[in-house]
Amino acid sequence: MTHDHAAGGNAPRHRPGDLVAFASALLARAGLDGDKAAVVAELLVDADLMGHTTHGLQLCAPYLRELETGSMARTGMPEVVSDRGGVLTLDGHRLPGVWLTAHALDLALERLPRHGLVGVAIRNSHHIGCLAAFLRRATERGAMMLLFSSDPAAASVAPFGGTRAVFTPDPVAVGIPTDGDPILVDVSASITTNGLTGRLHREGGRLPHPWLMDAQGNPTDDPGVLFADPPGTILPVGGLDHGHKGYGLALTVEAVTQGLGGFGRADAPKGWGASVYLQLMDPEAFAGTPAFVRQTGWIAEACRSNPPRPGVAAVRLPGQQGLARRREAMEHGVALHPGILESLRDWAGRFGVDMPA
Amino acid sequence: MTHDHAAGGNAPRHRPGDLVAFASALLARAGLDGDKAAVVAELLVDADLMGHTTHGLQLCAPYLRELETGSMARTGMPEVVSDRGGVLTLDGHRLPGVWLTAHALDLALERLPRHGLVGVAIRNSHHIGCLAAFLRRATERGAMMLLFSSDPAAASVAPFGGTRAVFTPDPVAVGIPTDGDPILVDVSASITTNGLTGRLHREGGRLPHPWLMDAQGNPTDDPGVLFADPPGTILPVGGLDHGHKGYGLALTVEAVTQGLGGFGRADAPKGWGASVYLQLMDPEAFAGTPAFVRQTGWIAEACRSNPPRPGVAAVRLPGQQGLARRREAMEHGVALHPGILESLRDWAGRFGVDMPA
Repeated sequence: MTHDHAAGGNAPRHRPGDLVAFASALLARAGLDGDKAAVVAELLVDADLMGHTTHGLQLCAPYLRELETGSMARTGMPEVVSDRGGVLTLDGHRLPGVWLTAHALDLALERLPRHGLVGVAIRNSHHIGCLAAFLRRATERGAMMLLFSSDPAAASVAPFGGTRAVFTPDPVAVGIPTDGDPILVDVSASITTNGLTGRLHREGGRLPHPWLMDAQGNPTDDPGVLFADPPGTILPVGGLDHGHKGYGLALTVEAVTQGLGGFGRADAPKGWGASVYLQLMDPEAFAGTPAFVRQTGWIAEACRSNPPRPGVAAVRLPGQQGLARRREAMEHGVALHPGILESLRDWAGRFGVDMPA
Repeated sequence: MTHDHAAGGNAPRHRPGDLVAFASALLARAGLDGDKAAVVAELLVDADLMGHTTHGLQLCAPYLRELETGSMARTGMPEVVSDRGGVLTLDGHRLPGVWLTAHALDLALERLPRHGLVGVAIRNSHHIGCLAAFLRRATERGAMMLLFSSDPAAASVAPFGGTRAVFTPDPVAVGIPTDGDPILVDVSASITTNGLTGRLHREGGRLPHPWLMDAQGNPTDDPGVLFADPPGTILPVGGLDHGHKGYGLALTVEAVTQGLGGFGRADAPKGWGASVYLQLMDPEAFAGTPAFVRQTGWIAEACRSNPPRPGVAAVRLPGQQGLARRREAMEHGVALHPGILESLRDWAGRFGVDMPA
């Protein structure tokens, strides 16, 4: 989810608030009740502000289509499957995953002071968008956050040594408070994402390296193999060289999302969706927040001040660039990736919503 | 921790119980009190049985030296820094990490039925050996286990884009119950380990691929760069291609081990040691154990039956080979990596302990 880039400097810039209001109006007109449209819109725009352009407003049109077909539910609350205080399992009944995840995070934050460690599994969620966009909400409250997601109805990554897709890219996001800006880790068990591969395929591009494999097991940089018949796969992190590492991570993500949620590939679900596991850890319940941020702050500084390799301007922390982009965009506006607003023009017309300035 | 291999077929085989008794006698003679010698010996031998030959009895001689110098403590119990029921923080006072981790696991297993999710941070531990060796103890009880370790007194891995070591390899082990054998993930945030690199350096070998970088940032397969002045580093998982993934994992491991434990690099500790974070998750407290193993069992079978790439005999699950090796070794004995028993001969003589048959 981190391989994408902010749009070029020549694209028109929008005020973030205008984009949130625009997307929120579209989603509300599509039928989302309560605070769902506003919450989804804010988190999608936040992804764009941080430069995660494949997981921001680019998702709005597909979400509107899913709402129209009924594949994404519009109203109501998740069902509580089990509740043990520090451990909660929800059935999302295919409500918007961005909203469900924000809701689960709110519940976990409420429970954290009492339990010190809170885990929430969500089954039957719809897609949850950009994982990194949720992290600041936890780190601003001093909590460390882990967020895992998989889609049991889809597969594009094979186990290491194999050729048939079993896993989704299986993203993992980790928010780590420090004595300054938080560290916002946003990786996946595969080298690249479905989002970037699909975009490059549509745009006729190639991946920067042979990060895919065709159905026969030959590595390639051609995004088309993922759409061939039989389809190829995205290589796990570590590639052909040490892909058992990404494979191990994928198994972990699938277990905490679909295993703990109790619903997944064994049920052969249909339709775009997600299984989610969210966990908060309160440093205060362990050795104390000052001791925690003293360590993470020290490590962050050791990374920032690290002598770079030739060709590298400076060593960055995960999230550092996204947070800087977000600050800049809050002040000067955000330029969207080409095509995103165009993808929403028809919806705006149908719903009688004005395009953003 | 998974790059090592079992010894060749010509080496003499030992009964596992004989090796445990031998190592236990040595460690007890070195001063370990209570059950510490027996627990450490059993887990070291278990690592050899599973083929993790750099993290089995090869560690016994170094541990004996550490006990002799006093760098590894011999007696007593860890100090409870904080206890919130489902969240526990221990100060290990430099007791043997293998025993401390087994002790923390016992405590977590006791608390798991009540809390459903239990996290234990251990600071000031000594080295914890082979992470994978602990996992079966949790999965046999139906629990999913996460185990993270770092050594704040050492560094051999640079942040992605940098050249100066900040992290240890930062291993992560994950035990996942299924409807059959458990999945035992044992990876690290770096491509390879200090253990394998050190062994190849001593033996004059090369790494299979350019998994290291010299101090100037040039990739190399020469293990000697890690021992040069200035020293090189081990590349993070993903290497020069997508090493931001391993970097993100390293930051996560350092945060949960040293951050939650409240002691680490910021304190500039000296001597071989470890910071540990152990977490158990009870599927019963989420959506239920049957639902959990139904999903993980389905995924395991989808991996085992996956059509392999050319040159790959069959797709394996993490831990599958280790568990098979262990069963074979329990029945027919285990062949140790060359040099391991020799490294203990002097100690056996000094302590009046018979070498194993």
